[in-house]
Amino acid sequence: MTNVTDQDRVLIFDTTLRDGEQSPGATMTHDEKLEIAELLDEMGVDIIEAGFPIASEGDFKAVTEIAQRSKNSRICGLARANFADIDRCWEAVKHAEQNRIHTFIGTSPLHRAIPNLTQDEMAEKIHETVSHARNLCENVQWSPMDATRTEWDYLCRVIEIAIKAGATTINIPDTVGYTAPVESADLIKRLIETVPGADEVIFATHCHNDLGMATANSLAAVAGGARQIECTINGLGERAGNTALEEVVMALRTRNDIMPWRTGIDTTKIMHISRRVATVSGFNVQFNKAIVGKNAFAHESGIHQDGMLKNRENFEIMRPEDVGLSGTSLPLGKHSGRAALREKLSTLGYEVGDNQLKDIFVRFKELADRKKEVFDDDLIALMSLDDDDGNDHLQLVSMKVTCGTVGKAEATIEMDVDGQEVIATETGDGPVDAAFRAIRRVHPNTAHLQLYQVHAVTEGTDAQATVSVRLEEDGMIATGQSANTDTVVASAKAYIHALNRLIVRREKAGPGADAREISYKDLS
Amino acid sequence: MTNVTDQDRVLIFDTTLRDGEQSPGATMTHDEKLEIAELLDEMGVDIIEAGFPIASEGDFKAVTEIAQRSKNSRICGLARANFADIDRCWEAVKHAEQNRIHTFIGTSPLHRAIPNLTQDEMAEKIHETVSHARNLCENVQWSPMDATRTEWDYLCRVIEIAIKAGATTINIPDTVGYTAPVESADLIKRLIETVPGADEVIFATHCHNDLGMATANSLAAVAGGARQIECTINGLGERAGNTALEEVVMALRTRNDIMPWRTGIDTTKIMHISRRVATVSGFNVQFNKAIVGKNAFAHESGIHQDGMLKNRENFEIMRPEDVGLSGTSLPLGKHSGRAALREKLSTLGYEVGDNQLKDIFVRFKELADRKKEVFDDDLIALMSLDDDDGNDHLQLVSMKVTCGTVGKAEATIEMDVDGQEVIATETGDGPVDAAFRAIRRVHPNTAHLQLYQVHAVTEGTDAQATVSVRLEEDGMIATGQSANTDTVVASAKAYIHALNRLIVRREKAGPGADAREISYKDLS
Repeated sequence: MTNVTDQDRVLIFDTTLRDGEQSPGATMTHDEKLEIAELLDEMGVDIIEAGFPIASEGDFKAVTEIAQRSKNSRICGLARANFADIDRCWEAVKHAEQNRIHTFIGTSPLHRAIPNLTQDEMAEKIHETVSHARNLCENVQWSPMDATRTEWDYLCRVIEIAIKAGATTINIPDTVGYTAPVESADLIKRLIETVPGADEVIFATHCHNDLGMATANSLAAVAGGARQIECTINGLGERAGNTALEEVVMALRTRNDIMPWRTGIDTTKIMHISRRVATVSGFNVQFNKAIVGKNAFAHESGIHQDGMLKNRENFEIMRPEDVGLSGTSLPLGKHSGRAALREKLSTLGYEVGDNQLKDIFVRFKELADRKKEVFDDDLIALMSLDDDDGNDHLQLVSMKVTCGTVGKAEATIEMDVDGQEVIATETGDGPVDAAFRAIRRVHPNTAHLQLYQVHAVTEGTDAQATVSVRLEEDGMIATGQSANTDTVVASAKAYIHALNRLIVRREKAGPGADAREISYKDLS
Repeated sequence: MTNVTDQDRVLIFDTTLRDGEQSPGATMTHDEKLEIAELLDEMGVDIIEAGFPIASEGDFKAVTEIAQRSKNSRICGLARANFADIDRCWEAVKHAEQNRIHTFIGTSPLHRAIPNLTQDEMAEKIHETVSHARNLCENVQWSPMDATRTEWDYLCRVIEIAIKAGATTINIPDTVGYTAPVESADLIKRLIETVPGADEVIFATHCHNDLGMATANSLAAVAGGARQIECTINGLGERAGNTALEEVVMALRTRNDIMPWRTGIDTTKIMHISRRVATVSGFNVQFNKAIVGKNAFAHESGIHQDGMLKNRENFEIMRPEDVGLSGTSLPLGKHSGRAALREKLSTLGYEVGDNQLKDIFVRFKELADRKKEVFDDDLIALMSLDDDDGNDHLQLVSMKVTCGTVGKAEATIEMDVDGQEVIATETGDGPVDAAFRAIRRVHPNTAHLQLYQVHAVTEGTDAQATVSVRLEEDGMIATGQSANTDTVVASAKAYIHALNRLIVRREKAGPGADAREISYKDLS
């Protein structure tokens, strides 16, 4: 954490695990949350909003464990404006060396109407809840939800109350992504000028991208005096998402001449965490996404190539290596050895121990036997997939699928179910449907398929396909992934992977334990 | 076209077919370009930049035919700063009732170094080429490429020269996506104040999204006095792409209170053209893309649902129907009749005649027999695919594929090749590789697979998969698509579709005719 008085420093508050994770369909497993939190911590994120502890047992456990494991980052949890939320939040974040309680309430006329509170009643509630939070935790963030649509006088009044009650950070959320840069800068500037005590706290900006301006609005807020930007990896989040961490960080770095502020982010970690968040959330990044899109650094049209050859600066304001993309990248092949594999993995952001390297090398060799060239993206797919740890309840032994234009597709699946071999044959609409039906015959379940995605990892017909499958059963969600040069085999393995995760989660949690228990969940 | 003196009106200049189409991999076929141009014309785009006529025979033909067919839009072509380019451009755009020549040169020190011209030599070249263009066409746009990195005095000097030589629009491109809103507004404002004759022309802004600020930069330029925004559908374009049309248009509409300018765009056409551009370019839109992402209007977390039920305005600043998304959408089924299908297609933006409806209804019934519920997205996939017109050289008669974990995948493909039935069996790495190898056995070719994409259209294991295949052979590119509940069948059909298109293009054009002949291709 930086000092309030360091006026050049902008704090990065990442809410990938809270506001990002609540995007419809982006739910992450416990282990995935821990992994992303570790990457955020390593890349220099100042504050990690790790979840909404009272929302569910799963959220509470994730925030608790992230707090216990945190090294450099401050760990924050979200709480509504009531004591139960705040107490539960503290129980989770207190394990971190640096912690924060983030409490909020909707202050605009539209939001005051929901709990049906008068201005005075809400003001009193803010005083009580922020005071309560501050009695527990020395670092308290307070947010007036829908601030950009709250009456000016009332907004100033409640911010003053929150500061007096002990808030150390005041966050101004543009909950519906409604603002524009000039307005965003002006709002923060006027608040800091107007509200008594404003100079003793840090103002934060929390923007949504509904009109495509979240990055510009966040940076404008910093120009207006904000010193904390709330953001997510890949701009993950509901609707059009939140401000993208990679965009604000790289904009501040690239245009430091006109935006003389700095963050503590190690930008070379950006690509790796971007890929991991895309994989675990199932939210792919479009080719033409700023900074982290597949094409963000590509220059293929003629003029640009000419220009590039003559002077790289002509069309490149950032270097690929600044965000952790290795420059030229030669593919590995079947004759590549362990040292080459380890070195390549290291350039891709994976540091592996000897034992792990041994396992990975076996899988690499299997792949290299099937594919002539193993590209970076193939290795990333390989690394992105959990190893079967041998303890899985369900394991695929073999499968055979017949499909085509005549008759229905048919799949025969042989599986190991807790040590017993079971075979089933089913027909279906296409090979994937047939395979999934056969698996359901072997292991009957009522899980609903929420998402089925196929990505070709590299070019060529022998490319690996990565398949993601998301299943939902009784409010519990599990995602499975697999990569294979055979799409149908990858699909079956991803489905079985997701089923195994559902089984584990049910065993650990008891029925329904991970379903979010409250509907009032969000700050945005 | 609006009048220069109407100060509230911002012209929308769409360059999806020029700057967008030149993104690596986004190449469109002739027919696709005509379709997109028609949709742009219908939605009220003021100026369509239809291509770069001298770049290739294909570009020339596309611009020519789009010019011939245009109804409301002005048709523009791109030309470098030489007479041959400008003449070729005029030959193509002259067919439009309203036309424009857009000529450009890189004016920054980095770009002046490429042709190795002094400031004076380049100034003379600008004078000559703009004068030449204006002698051909009464509407001329001139762009100093990399304007944001050009010395201020020199930028003012060359703009003055271009205006005196007859340019009617001066476009200020931020070629590398380097600028920020305050700077963008200030640059346009100062240019208009400084350059003699600036009040007689329209200033345009052309932004790239490398730092995620293209939308905000474009709108800031308008605040500074620009009255033309250059943009693309879905922000298609090289690297992180161009300004997204849908974002600037919806931001101006939604925040008209602080940005009191209007466009002529019918916003209800946005979703349809967004989907078509995504399909034909192969550039998918990410879930959390502003305005046109799948989640842009989704509200699923608890608090938002509570809020939504109580007051829609709480979390919604735009209505889905404003961009052409129908509100609640009930799926069709096997008992749905023709009238229901026609009505549903109409709400999705497809107006079909009786004959076309007859064909579509047959395909709809086939699909409804396989799927219990036919969703909007299924129908969009159905409509997005070209009918086999019966004249194709290669047609799939039947196929059978076996795959799994034991041994290699094997595909037997029976095809009709110019009236003759040919069967081939091949093995491969996975069912798709085997099928593609069998097709290559039936119809030997050297086409390189550039892109293979699978999209599950709807939820559920019986979802249709849409497969896109892009092939490249001797510099010619063709994309094929197919949708089927069997992914492997869809893959084979998409591959055959692309091969047929390659054959047709080769017949029409002669060898190599569609390969771009020049490497100096772009304005950005």
